[in-house]
Amino acid sequence: MTVILRLAMIGFGNVGQEFARLLDRKREWLLKSKGLDVEVLVISTRSKGSLMSKRRLDTARAVEELRKGSLRGYGSEYTELSPIELIGKCDADMMIELTTLDIESGQPATDHIKKAMNMGMDVVTANKGPVAFHYDDLARLARSNGVKFRFEGTVMDGTPIFNLVEKTLQGCEVTGIQGILNSTSNFVLTEMASGKTMDEAISKAQGMGLAEADPAMDLDGWDAAAKITALANVLMGAGSDPKKVERNGIRGLSADDVRASANERTKWKLLASAERDGGSIRTFVGPETITPDSPFWSVDGTSSAVTLKTDLMGDLTIIESGPMLTQTAYAIFSDMLLVVDSIRAGTLQ
Amino acid sequence: MTVILRLAMIGFGNVGQEFARLLDRKREWLLKSKGLDVEVLVISTRSKGSLMSKRRLDTARAVEELRKGSLRGYGSEYTELSPIELIGKCDADMMIELTTLDIESGQPATDHIKKAMNMGMDVVTANKGPVAFHYDDLARLARSNGVKFRFEGTVMDGTPIFNLVEKTLQGCEVTGIQGILNSTSNFVLTEMASGKTMDEAISKAQGMGLAEADPAMDLDGWDAAAKITALANVLMGAGSDPKKVERNGIRGLSADDVRASANERTKWKLLASAERDGGSIRTFVGPETITPDSPFWSVDGTSSAVTLKTDLMGDLTIIESGPMLTQTAYAIFSDMLLVVDSIRAGTLQ
Repeated sequence: MTVILRLAMIGFGNVGQEFARLLDRKREWLLKSKGLDVEVLVISTRSKGSLMSKRRLDTARAVEELRKGSLRGYGSEYTELSPIELIGKCDADMMIELTTLDIESGQPATDHIKKAMNMGMDVVTANKGPVAFHYDDLARLARSNGVKFRFEGTVMDGTPIFNLVEKTLQGCEVTGIQGILNSTSNFVLTEMASGKTMDEAISKAQGMGLAEADPAMDLDGWDAAAKITALANVLMGAGSDPKKVERNGIRGLSADDVRASANERTKWKLLASAERDGGSIRTFVGPETITPDSPFWSVDGTSSAVTLKTDLMGDLTIIESGPMLTQTAYAIFSDMLLVVDSIRAGTLQ
Repeated sequence: MTVILRLAMIGFGNVGQEFARLLDRKREWLLKSKGLDVEVLVISTRSKGSLMSKRRLDTARAVEELRKGSLRGYGSEYTELSPIELIGKCDADMMIELTTLDIESGQPATDHIKKAMNMGMDVVTANKGPVAFHYDDLARLARSNGVKFRFEGTVMDGTPIFNLVEKTLQGCEVTGIQGILNSTSNFVLTEMASGKTMDEAISKAQGMGLAEADPAMDLDGWDAAAKITALANVLMGAGSDPKKVERNGIRGLSADDVRASANERTKWKLLASAERDGGSIRTFVGPETITPDSPFWSVDGTSSAVTLKTDLMGDLTIIESGPMLTQTAYAIFSDMLLVVDSIRAGTLQ
């Protein structure tokens, strides 16, 4: 039996395009192993128009048209409807939310997700804002609409963290979390440890496409704060938001500090943590030194890692080494499959 | 709706007893979150008799009787039937296989598992022998009998490795595996790096109950060979057995080697690896040096770790820090829940 799954892709930048390529690459596997035929019916971009169809769009051709500057050349499927209008009118079963995020508000992703859930669509996103700012509301809305909401790509790309806990650590309580979650800061600290100034390290990160023109979100700890909030909300029921995180970035560290500590067999890392504090959950982000016995000792450059402290399994650490675009695209792919699995299992989560 | 799950525990040593305590500790959670009421109907020990009942056994009382030397004092449930006879006669839905293993043959665990599958019982084991020696046969037998077969506890205690790949890395191909899988060897190497001789380190491990009186299985790489075979069979379709592993233990290393390397910012580790070699899978175990940029750098003492090399997610490393008995018991618990989930989902795997 083959099931047809129809997607609306809201946001079609690098991650979205890589996900579309991944769907093509794994088409045979999807059909054979999962009995699943995935069709993209909607592609929405911020400034280059959108496509809506009742039949499968050719995503490779859409990528080509985007390279020329606009989706207009694709054909009669072209539309200038807004994302909200597209979600309201399309025939898709699932929305993939990948728009650019305003980290201060979690928008417009949160509105897109609410609209999709209210239309009865399952939702997969790699956008950390909605999970960091509105997790409890969105989880409730998903339940009341009988739809699924998954977001593995919000933290450490496609590395299984949320899915790991939900699927493989059942009955295990997460009592604390610590991670290196912002790869730009980690890259900058690694470069500084080998002798660069912070400005030189930032320039190098920008040259590699790793840091934004304004790297404040990364260096001031905002990105890490949003991620630790997402983790704490989902895994520890924190009900928090990123503004409540005690937050220090790495800009207070001098090149001398970082270099000197590297010589003393310690390293500076930007650590994001969540721990129980009486009845509530304390979340904090800031530079800390680690020693060679830390599981994070090898986590340099763009790598990232998280340690989950648990009641039954002690400390488990997961390290993602040198991620590329494929890893975030895989998060969407993996979440899409888990949604299909749970619908097939007839369970509501 | 509450489902009653009836267990036959074949083997009731430290891990089995800890699992029974875990069932008691999580009884409320099992009922509330999973709608599951777990009853132990059979307890089989090697030399202290067995219990079989049509109603729930009191596992805490069984543990007390064992402390006195025999299960005979428990009551009329006492029996001297063999494990195979018990499996054939009992009313259990699932067998938990935790007998002492003969690593050279994978017995008697493999016979117990076959008998249980042929009786229509699902099987959960922490015994690496059956998976290392007979995985393909047992997987086939499980399919033909429509039962589940799970074995997370065979490698790195309850750390999700098999379950991680199956449940959270769907569509991702494992192209290579490397791990520190034998904690006795790792403990001995860590002690030697800090100045002990191998004999002193082994004595310390024996004093802690970590190493057997005859530590050959650990130090000669047999245990690691069985574990890398289990991983390669399940995750890479190797169809191998532990005798095919290129195997070197740590006994060839002198205290001077290990201490000297520690001073040079390298460490000796007993690494177990699986990699593609043309159309087949090559498995090998041996001491190798690692440097501080290895994700295994912090993996000292009784900790263990594995790196999965994958096509879509790059390298993922999972580290288990300082495991205790609870972690192996949790593997059984976690597998038991996954069996129940997949039965509820009505899928055959």
